[in-house]
Amino acid sequence: MAPHRIVIVGGGFAGLWATRALSKAPVEILLIDRANHHLFQPLLYQVATAGLSSPDIAAPLRHILRGQKNVEVRLASVERIEPAARRVVLDDGNVVGYDTLLLSTGATHAYFGHDSWAPHAPGLKTLDDALLLRRRLLLAFEHAEAETDAEKRRAWLNFAIVGGGPTGVELAGTLAEIARHTLKREFRHIDPASARVRLIEAGPRILSSFPESLSAKAQKQLERLGVEVVTGSPVEAIDGQGYRSGGVFVPARTVVWAAGVAASPLARSLGVELDRAGRVRVAPDLSVPGHPEIFIAGDLAALTQDGKPVPGVAPAAKQMGKHVAQSIRDRLAGRAPRPFRYRDFGNLATIGRMAAVVDLHGLHFSGLIAWWFWLAAHVFFLIGFRNRLVVLLNWAVAYWSYQRAARIIIGHKDDTSADEKDTEAG
Amino acid sequence: MAPHRIVIVGGGFAGLWATRALSKAPVEILLIDRANHHLFQPLLYQVATAGLSSPDIAAPLRHILRGQKNVEVRLASVERIEPAARRVVLDDGNVVGYDTLLLSTGATHAYFGHDSWAPHAPGLKTLDDALLLRRRLLLAFEHAEAETDAEKRRAWLNFAIVGGGPTGVELAGTLAEIARHTLKREFRHIDPASARVRLIEAGPRILSSFPESLSAKAQKQLERLGVEVVTGSPVEAIDGQGYRSGGVFVPARTVVWAAGVAASPLARSLGVELDRAGRVRVAPDLSVPGHPEIFIAGDLAALTQDGKPVPGVAPAAKQMGKHVAQSIRDRLAGRAPRPFRYRDFGNLATIGRMAAVVDLHGLHFSGLIAWWFWLAAHVFFLIGFRNRLVVLLNWAVAYWSYQRAARIIIGHKDDTSADEKDTEAG
Repeated sequence: MAPHRIVIVGGGFAGLWATRALSKAPVEILLIDRANHHLFQPLLYQVATAGLSSPDIAAPLRHILRGQKNVEVRLASVERIEPAARRVVLDDGNVVGYDTLLLSTGATHAYFGHDSWAPHAPGLKTLDDALLLRRRLLLAFEHAEAETDAEKRRAWLNFAIVGGGPTGVELAGTLAEIARHTLKREFRHIDPASARVRLIEAGPRILSSFPESLSAKAQKQLERLGVEVVTGSPVEAIDGQGYRSGGVFVPARTVVWAAGVAASPLARSLGVELDRAGRVRVAPDLSVPGHPEIFIAGDLAALTQDGKPVPGVAPAAKQMGKHVAQSIRDRLAGRAPRPFRYRDFGNLATIGRMAAVVDLHGLHFSGLIAWWFWLAAHVFFLIGFRNRLVVLLNWAVAYWSYQRAARIIIGHKDDTSADEKDTEAG
Repeated sequence: MAPHRIVIVGGGFAGLWATRALSKAPVEILLIDRANHHLFQPLLYQVATAGLSSPDIAAPLRHILRGQKNVEVRLASVERIEPAARRVVLDDGNVVGYDTLLLSTGATHAYFGHDSWAPHAPGLKTLDDALLLRRRLLLAFEHAEAETDAEKRRAWLNFAIVGGGPTGVELAGTLAEIARHTLKREFRHIDPASARVRLIEAGPRILSSFPESLSAKAQKQLERLGVEVVTGSPVEAIDGQGYRSGGVFVPARTVVWAAGVAASPLARSLGVELDRAGRVRVAPDLSVPGHPEIFIAGDLAALTQDGKPVPGVAPAAKQMGKHVAQSIRDRLAGRAPRPFRYRDFGNLATIGRMAAVVDLHGLHFSGLIAWWFWLAAHVFFLIGFRNRLVVLLNWAVAYWSYQRAARIIIGHKDDTSADEKDTEAG
């Protein structure tokens, strides 16, 4: 009898953890990803702000899985799923059949129906995104330095980050540090500290998934860093010159989108019910209703627990990946499937060099201790000994000196092809 | 009286060393570079072979020079020089006047009149080049893994490096190590060790600028690593499918050009005599004949000493940069100019993980000791404490395990815009 063939699409937290949890199972796995690497997304904002370089937070999938004999890695893009035929179709036209499919392709940025904003307000989900953002941030200061018109210079020194969740908060705090400390003394025509960094949140408070007291602490820490926090202020328009909010247009050549994600479009080819963000409403065992041979894990899954949605965070993705692996093993052994239960260990967000907020359910702390905790947790969970060392090293340098390790602009400053690539990546 | 204004174009070894040597001089310096960083070119092949990431070998010019009060850094591209008007014209249309000009824009790759080869055989002079090369090298193995046709797969696993100088030797040795060690166990349909790496040299021996005995040792070391060294074999044609040499066509989807450089085209706008490679024949004090206010330093300068041309290597560029600074200070103080004298300390090339050749004029050594020497010299000369630490760390990891720190492919695998960017950069 042919071995049970599993196809896993997406090598992020969910897909990779599912793969590894199946290492001893009597299956053959094909892991498909359109990138050659697993990405540690929580530190993506560090690549975007030139604190780390791409390879520091990513590891090649082939390398991670080289010792697992029942898995093969394929660099490819999946165009669609054909559930009736039990196969996936790749972008090169090849088809791959499966006995069981796990879709763990995650989320991408979404603009609440305003896709025209995308080229002007890039998001942060992949390494491509992070490098593009880094380029734009560094070039903004270069343009300001060379600009003789005072108004235009001001627009280059205005930065806006849309979305007050952990990503937006981390970006805003880091950007303020760069402007006020890292770049000090390096320019002759501008004072980088005069850059204005605004964090714009549509809802009543930033970090809405945290307890109110921690939201308040985070806002204080941001303001101490020089970030202007604007709440209750949805963005109405974004063009290349700035954004409009509350009826007022603000000139800002650099706008970053950290406000919304939507599920990877691949889910549409399943032909099943999706929620408003395009995620798949899964059964308690994480399979697709009507398709017990198809599982969803990670940001692509829409699941409610105790009346609240399971959040699209790394720990949830990992737990879902492991649960899918368990469900597959149960099935092969003839056991009944078990429902998935998300264990929420808490929430962390970092504000800047030495400040963070940590919520461990009843245990809340902030400030420097929280920052050490945040650092330890992230370094611990990074894959790869070398990566952990490098990240620790870069943090030590930054801690002492505010210096950022990766302030390199690749490509000619007027080369817009690098910018356009972002919208193609979609 | 207005301060003496110096414009320096190019922040490589020559331009940066000249700038720093003028820190106490009564001048105002504008340093213009089209990249925001100073690049440690000797380690560029490491970025190209995924052993280091871009920021490890580059440092932002603004950061390096932040403490030097008499210098301003400008990110811009110079379109041409207007010597009669004593000014340079930037690509954005702005003009900058100078009292003294230093042109230190270096060299770019040249194809001996066969510019059509450029897209098929990229060279290695900038970070852009290195990242493009890295992408192609990593993708070649990915394509081979997915390819079902045996002949096409063979073509993906054939690599050719054209040019047996230090760059070609370093690339070939490292590529062979990657194929035989780093990627072991990571593929299921190919054996990466079956990759064939050929180093093709038109002349009678590789490393022709080294003593014959060291050329022979280097060739032995390369062959021990699995590189096929072909000498006396000029390349006749290169297309996207392979190359022709000695009348024979060899299918090879990845060809790297390390065989020829030509001077930056900017020299042409000077209106003075250039040599065959486009370099400026300078006077003994490194100024341009007929234009005592214009100096040339680095790879752009053509200078003969004791019947031999001064080589286009980093130590020569640094010495020239310092000499130009001295010449400028002499002039301002009314002293006579002194002729430049290149002090050749020797030559180093590394072959692979633990082998190198070192020529210190009478003192030749090779093998592991040479490798340690090479490593120490390169780390010592790197700019930046953090960069030195990171490079040492990566080397330690590679030394123990053959692992390479930066095996990340950015962008979609079929995205040709990244490839096309190379020819535009020209």
